[in-house]
Amino acid sequence: MTRYALAVDVGGTKMEAALVSADGVLVEGSRSRQPTGREATPPALAAAVDAIVRHALAALPAGAELVGAGIGSAGPVDRVAGTIEPVNMPLAHGFALAAAVRDAATAVLGRDLPTTLGHDGGALALAESWLGATRDAGASLSIVVSTGVGGGFVVNGAYIPGATGNAGHLGQVRREGGLTLEEIASGPASAAWAQEQGWTGATGEDLARDAAAGDAIARAAIERSARAVGEALADAATLVDLDVVAIGGGFSRVSSDYIDLVQQALTAHAVHPYSRRTRAVRSGLGDEGPLIGAAALALR
Amino acid sequence: MTRYALAVDVGGTKMEAALVSADGVLVEGSRSRQPTGREATPPALAAAVDAIVRHALAALPAGAELVGAGIGSAGPVDRVAGTIEPVNMPLAHGFALAAAVRDAATAVLGRDLPTTLGHDGGALALAESWLGATRDAGASLSIVVSTGVGGGFVVNGAYIPGATGNAGHLGQVRREGGLTLEEIASGPASAAWAQEQGWTGATGEDLARDAAAGDAIARAAIERSARAVGEALADAATLVDLDVVAIGGGFSRVSSDYIDLVQQALTAHAVHPYSRRTRAVRSGLGDEGPLIGAAALALR
Repeated sequence: MTRYALAVDVGGTKMEAALVSADGVLVEGSRSRQPTGREATPPALAAAVDAIVRHALAALPAGAELVGAGIGSAGPVDRVAGTIEPVNMPLAHGFALAAAVRDAATAVLGRDLPTTLGHDGGALALAESWLGATRDAGASLSIVVSTGVGGGFVVNGAYIPGATGNAGHLGQVRREGGLTLEEIASGPASAAWAQEQGWTGATGEDLARDAAAGDAIARAAIERSARAVGEALADAATLVDLDVVAIGGGFSRVSSDYIDLVQQALTAHAVHPYSRRTRAVRSGLGDEGPLIGAAALALR
Repeated sequence: MTRYALAVDVGGTKMEAALVSADGVLVEGSRSRQPTGREATPPALAAAVDAIVRHALAALPAGAELVGAGIGSAGPVDRVAGTIEPVNMPLAHGFALAAAVRDAATAVLGRDLPTTLGHDGGALALAESWLGATRDAGASLSIVVSTGVGGGFVVNGAYIPGATGNAGHLGQVRREGGLTLEEIASGPASAAWAQEQGWTGATGEDLARDAAAGDAIARAAIERSARAVGEALADAATLVDLDVVAIGGGFSRVSSDYIDLVQQALTAHAVHPYSRRTRAVRSGLGDEGPLIGAAALALR
């Protein structure tokens, strides 16, 4: 009998759910989404959770074994309390996400479902080590460079959640000048820095287009982001001793050599041979990565 | 039948071995030491290993079960290759420490002995979580502030070695200005900084005495070290999500409020509630900690 997990991914702009099989495949028709956003309140989030969980469970194949629910959420999270404190949803701080998923599932199933909450970076790292670019690594960090910068650790095949589920939050580490890495290297931060230098575009997509067309400021903004990410990764590789770092997220595709630029900065900044050897590679996951990772929290 | 491990601790000035029982007690008469030092060569280290291993094994109780050897070494190490690249023993880079211990033990026992190599910070962290100040923690870092600054992670009772055995090397992370934490906050670095400000003492012990007597520069050097350690710990707590950090080593006792100063800096520098809650506490280990930790690599 094939085993399945209910996967829930909660982000700053939307939440999604789906059923995922034990071999990492989404069940057709099980995936749906609801909006979230800066103004999202706990009751609105609970209603959205209920809708996507009901939609997913309606697609459960007859006689299938549903082993549990895995939830990846924008962080910080508290995996012990089952609550979230998302940076980009200030009104939702303290929302009992794990209970909301469990309650919605219980209402459909008529029984309790084991539920595991992690942050989205940790879930993604699990997916990357299961089916993506860090499959053969002894110790890996998988990160996303996008509107935010986050990630998660997998060591010897096991996800390292840390005390409250937030290990891997690379973007929240402070760098030179007291700014966090996210405040330096995210897509919006890179666009804002370029604007300060006189660039007239607005978004990460604009930076990509203008840099490709030879705009020096746009190119400098991309190099600045990659250098900051690479230097932060060098320190993370020194501290946690990593084989490989997988890099995904929209802004990591801002230029075709972004990963190479990150690798150069990582290698130059690392103090010891053991951290200089850490490889930066492109993520091996597609758009289903966050849901597969959330499922992995329950399946693996 | 009581289980025992052969424990070996290799540092920059000396190496020690002992037998340690499965309840963490050193076997009387089994402990001995040999000098190491900056000029140590592989043949000299191999001879020293042979001497301390023979001494320890001669104390093995009749009929005792010897389960393996655990080695904690000054880092970096390569736990996969079984070799060491110690910062403070440049002539010994590449020394096959695990094979030297195994060979010495095999010569005495007439059989092969399973041997596990870790870095000394990792071994210490295991000892701290087994019998010291991080016993009840879900995720902890244990560090030493002394001639160097190093440490190790334990998450859910398991030691996190990283890819090559060097996870926890807090002192090798770069801080403001490109210096490593060790270059800012160790005992010798703190004394050197104070001398640059006009202080006339020489050692960490001198700093302790003069600060206690009211010398403003000596006190500032201590506060500078604690602040740098606390800020690096805040970033480590953000990245790995730690309940508690245990702090030992000679320079951590330079003033009675050193741990409090570290805690203040950690709390002030951490970005999120989950890392601000990380507690800094004094190490619960004594002088046998490194050997108990080395044994734990084999016993636990």
